[in-house]
Order: sequence, then C-alpha cells, then structure tokens
Amino acid sequence: MQKKIVLLPGDGIGPEIMDAAVDILETIAKKFNHQFIFDYQLIGGAAIDQLNTPLPQQTINSCEVADAVLLGAVGGPKWDNNPSDLRPERGLLGIRKALDLYANLRPVKGFKQLLSASPLKEEIIQGSDLLIVRELTGGLYFGQPSERNADQSAVIDTLAYTRKEMERIIDKGFQSAQIRNKKLTSVDKANVLESSKLWREIVEEKKQMYPDVEVEHVLVDAAAMKLITNPSSFDVIVTENMFGDILSDEASVLTGSLGMLPSASLAENGVGLYEPAHGSAPDIAGLGIANPVAMLLSTAMMLRYSFALEEEATVIEKAIEACIDKGYYTADLAVKSGEKVSTKEMTQAI
Amino acid sequence: MQKKIVLLPGDGIGPEIMDAAVDILETIAKKFNHQFIFDYQLIGGAAIDQLNTPLPQQTINSCEVADAVLLGAVGGPKWDNNPSDLRPERGLLGIRKALDLYANLRPVKGFKQLLSASPLKEEIIQGSDLLIVRELTGGLYFGQPSERNADQSAVIDTLAYTRKEMERIIDKGFQSAQIRNKKLTSVDKANVLESSKLWREIVEEKKQMYPDVEVEHVLVDAAAMKLITNPSSFDVIVTENMFGDILSDEASVLTGSLGMLPSASLAENGVGLYEPAHGSAPDIAGLGIANPVAMLLSTAMMLRYSFALEEEATVIEKAIEACIDKGYYTADLAVKSGEKVSTKEMTQAI
Ligand SMILES: CC(C)[C@H](C(=O)O)[C@@H](O)C(=O)O
Ligand SMILES: CC(C)[C@H](C(=O)O)[C@@H](O)C(=O)O
Repeated sequence: MQKKIVLLPGDGIGPEIMDAAVDILETIAKKFNHQFIFDYQLIGGAAIDQLNTPLPQQTINSCEVADAVLLGAVGGPKWDNNPSDLRPERGLLGIRKALDLYANLRPVKGFKQLLSASPLKEEIIQGSDLLIVRELTGGLYFGQPSERNADQSAVIDTLAYTRKEMERIIDKGFQSAQIRNKKLTSVDKANVLESSKLWREIVEEKKQMYPDVEVEHVLVDAAAMKLITNPSSFDVIVTENMFGDILSDEASVLTGSLGMLPSASLAENGVGLYEPAHGSAPDIAGLGIANPVAMLLSTAMMLRYSFALEEEATVIEKAIEACIDKGYYTADLAVKSGEKVSTKEMTQAI
Repeated sequence: MQKKIVLLPGDGIGPEIMDAAVDILETIAKKFNHQFIFDYQLIGGAAIDQLNTPLPQQTINSCEVADAVLLGAVGGPKWDNNPSDLRPERGLLGIRKALDLYANLRPVKGFKQLLSASPLKEEIIQGSDLLIVRELTGGLYFGQPSERNADQSAVIDTLAYTRKEMERIIDKGFQSAQIRNKKLTSVDKANVLESSKLWREIVEEKKQMYPDVEVEHVLVDAAAMKLITNPSSFDVIVTENMFGDILSDEASVLTGSLGMLPSASLAENGVGLYEPAHGSAPDIAGLGIANPVAMLLSTAMMLRYSFALEEEATVIEKAIEACIDKGYYTADLAVKSGEKVSTKEMTQAI
C-alpha cells in the first residue's frame, strides 16, 4: 500500500513526537511492505515564524491531496500576545474548517499499570473506557456574528448549527457506540438552549435507526459531574463543539496520563487528521523527554481509520502496552517504579 | 431586626429542607432577638401544578418587596415532558432574570471528616477551598435570537453580553478574592470567542483597581482539567454563565458531599436568593432523609450577605461543623462511621 501523509509537527514538543511517529511508521512500512510518503508542512507558531500566518495556503493544499494528516501540537508563550489572527491555534481551527473535520474522536482509557497516577481513587477510575465524539466545525466556534458593537459596549457570539451538521455527528456517535459497548450518552443543555432542543429531537429520531444502541440524555452540567463520580458508566459520549471541548479535556485528566491519549478528527469522505490530546508543552520542548505515546496511538488511529490497516494499528497498540508492562515510562507520568526513559528510548522500545 | 423572607420550597426534597431552614431561623430569631417574617410562595413544579406556570407573578411581586429569598429546589420527572415554558427550571431562570440576580456565588469546601467520600484522592482534594463566582443573567442563557429557522433546517442561540454586565460580575470576582485569599482565576475561551476577548480585556483593565489581588487567565477547557488535578490551587474563579454552570457543577462533586454546598445569587442593590447547590432529588423526596446542610449553609449565607448578621451566620456554620464532628450524617454521605440520622434529627442536632 502506498500512502501520502502530511506531517504537521507544529510547536513545542510537536517536532520531537513527530519524529517518533515517523520512526514507527518506517518500521511498520518495512515490516508490512507499505510505502509511506511524508510531506512536511507548516502550521501554528512555526508557520507564523516563517510565513507570518498560522495556516499557509500550501499546508491546506497539501492536506487536501494527502491520504491522512498527522499533527504534533501548536502554541506556546512566544505567540501568546499576538493579535488573534496571528495565533497558533488559529491554524488548528482553520485546518479543521478547511478539511471539514467535523468529527473529533477522543478515546479515554487508562493503562492499568498507570492508574495509580490518576487524581481519582482507584475504585472510581478502574474499568473506565470511554470515547468522546465531539462536533468540531460548528457551534460557537464558527457561528456568525461574533463581534462587538461599534462603541465596544456589547458583544455577541453565535452558537449556530444546521440540522445536517447535527445529524452527521449524531450518526457518528451512534455508529461509534455500535462498534463499542452499545451505549450512547448524548450531552446537551436542552433545558436552556434552543440548539440543544433540536439536538435532542434529532437524537430521538435517529435512535430508531440504531435499535441496538441504548441512549441516554444528560445535561452538560450533570455530565461534568458524572465524569468524575462515575466515569466507568460511560461508553460513547456525543456532544456539540464547546461542550465537547470542555468535557473531553475534563475526561482527559481522569486516568492520570494525558500524555497517552490520542485523537482523530474525521471528515465525511475526505482526509482525516490525527493528533495527541495533549498540547505543545513548551516547558519541556527540546529536552527530549516528551511522552511519544499519545502521538503513536494517534498514528495507530490513522492506520485504522484512514487506511483500514487494522493489523498494523494493533501492532503499535500492543507494542505500547508491552512497553508499559515492562515498566518503561516518560517523565510526565507520576508512577512509582519502572525505568524512566527519553522520547527516543521509549520510541525505540516500542 | 425585622426581616421579611420569601420561602420558595419548590419540588422534591425542597419542602423538607425548607422546614429545616425555618426551624433554624426560628431558633436564631429567639436567641438573637430578631423577627423573621416568612412568606411562602410557589415556584417550579409546585407552581405549575397549582397555577399552571412555573413562576407566578405573585411570586415575583413578593420577592421584590422581601429582604431575602430562600429557595429549596425545583424539578422532577413529573414535569420532564412538559413543553419548555411549563418546565420547573423556567421558574428558576425567570426569577433570576426578574430579580436581576447577576452574581451566583458557589463556595466549595469540604468538611475534613467527610473527605473520604470524595472521588478524588485525599492528597488531591485536601486543603481545597474555592469560590465560584458565576454570571447568572446573561450569555447563552438569555441572548436573542434563540430559534430555529422556518423549515427547521438550522438553529441558533446567542451568547450576548454588555460590557456593563461583564464589569459588574468581574468586580464581584475581584471583591470576593479581596475578602478571601486574594487570588482570582478568570475563566474564558479567549482563543475562540469574541465575548471572551472582551471579558479578558475587562479583567486586565480592572486589575489595576485591585492591586492586592493576583489574577490569572485560564481557558475553560484547562480549568475543567485543573479543577480535578489541582483543586487546591484555586481561590476565587470568576466566569460567564454557561462556563460557570458547567464548572460549578464539576467542582461541586470534588469534595464528595454535594449535599453540603450552599449558594447565593445576588443583585446589585436588590434582594438576594439563597439555595442549596444540589437539586430536588425526587428519588428520596418525602422520605425524611434529605441532607439539610446545604440549605442551612445557604441560610447562613443569607444572614451574612443580605442582613449583615455575621455572628448569626457563624453560629449556624459552627453548629453544623460541630454536628459533623460528632459523627452525625445523612444517608447521602458515603462515610464509614458515625450516626446516620434523618433530616429532622440532623436539624435538631444543629
Ligand atoms: C486550541 C483550541 C482552539 C482547541 C479548541 O478549543 O478546540 C483545543 O482546546 C482543542 O480542544 O483542540
Ligand atoms: C436548572 C438549570 C436551568 C440551572 C442552570 O443551568 O443555571 C441549574 O443547572 C443551575 O446551575 O442552577
């Protein structure tokens, strides 16, 4: 199989963990006789520094003709005081919109050996294995108007959705539940928002089409509580963009190993983008100690979702598990025993 | 001192815990020689059942001329399938708007003796003592338009704020920090929302006026993480309505005793409304086992904030602490030893 992959290392630890992904992909290519063609492009702060824009047109063009996109991370204090069109995260928002990456999938599953690093008690966190399906190209993030009035005395943002946008992400939620544990939690704020009322109606309509999936509606505030008090009660959570942003970050710290959580952002028929759930960690950038696991699990997701290379994806995931089992860990993990290794050593071991 | 207090027992366990508040207030009245005049009014499901509206005009009128309002809780499965203008929470939203209760104060502080019931590890939760200052009458909750287009193919909600609305809640945040530990965390989503950018600018402007307060800006997704990983790093959190809804509910489960958390909703110069942070708990309504503590701590907040009766407020708080110390607890608390008591017995003990 020949595949063209755009690599967007980005900022902070992005380039280091991208190196890890490339190493692993080259190993996979050899072992399974594939050919991966890498196309490095700029995004975020790195693009601002070189081309004075967080998302060069060439990056978009390259992604559009690629088979998949891998992203490291964007952002850092260097660009924090830039005007908003020159901030790294604009690159991320822009590429999501440009590629119509409407479905953000964020699995949250702890490694048994690392659960001691969880802020939650072991009896609370153990057994949890959930997937957040977040809408990624609509809602408050892109709704217009988003502006101040002339004298700055008032401001509005707009939470806008079309029925179609809701339908496709809700379908993705149901379909994700079907291939997992068949339980879907739809999160909204239907007691306040009109958009949530429509959302809930669509979920109710759709559920006839997925009779094997059990559905519950949970208000976003209640969901924020339940993620902490009973995380193992969830299978798949589907929700709109802003709620998904908050809940997926909340969920990402529950297992105590944010450095191990991947994500996929998918389009309807186009290219998919894969990136770790964590950020650019500027404080440890360049030290060679970043945890490559989230990036490598994202790479595995790419192989599975974009290339249907199930076996190859599983090989990576199993290798990661085996390394954790053997006690290798990177500096970000608050574990008590084992062998602390660098990014390179961890990648090598995997 | 003579004070007129409107009592809105509401639904579920609301009436039971309101009885507890009345008992305690009568005791305080006797002991300190005050006169509290109680005016019972309808709200929520109780009002729907009797008057076919969740917020009768008479309730608003009574609150407007009262010195303070105590609310039990609203809502329950009985009204869950009502059209939205006939749902209990409309009463709550309506009274907030009618009385211009723009500032919702939700302190989160665990009782040492009960921290074992926290879902968090003891080393994480111990020492945390934070206050969430949530804007309560603006943002997505009340912004217009909030509607579907004619053919139901799209929907919008509006996140609207005036500068004045932001200023007064941000001032409340700073002032709250001044009388606490002088640290203010302003939560926004300034990397995405125009409203958050204005919010952040106002915080930056205002901080000159409160030089004794240390300010940090945290994005809402990061705040949702940090509440779990490092709750004791917060003192006062100030944020807009929807973010505050989510974060305050998230924070409320951290200590493991949601049944012990009060709240105050304050107007600029008008009446204040006090209610427990928990809901109407329809599953245990009428059983006489509801935890009255959140209601009684809310009552203490009323004495302090609306009547400036600091000593009386402290007497209630100290009595509650003493009872917890003695090992009394209600059924909602997952504690391991002590004496399990009913709502009435707990109130009596306090
Ligand atoms: C960087 C930011 C704009 C982005 C978002 O809010 O979507 C990030 O928090 C995420 O979740 O990927
Ligand atoms: C009942 C609901 C409308 C309300 C809100 O969202 O404000 C509640 O969750 C709260 O926090 O008081």
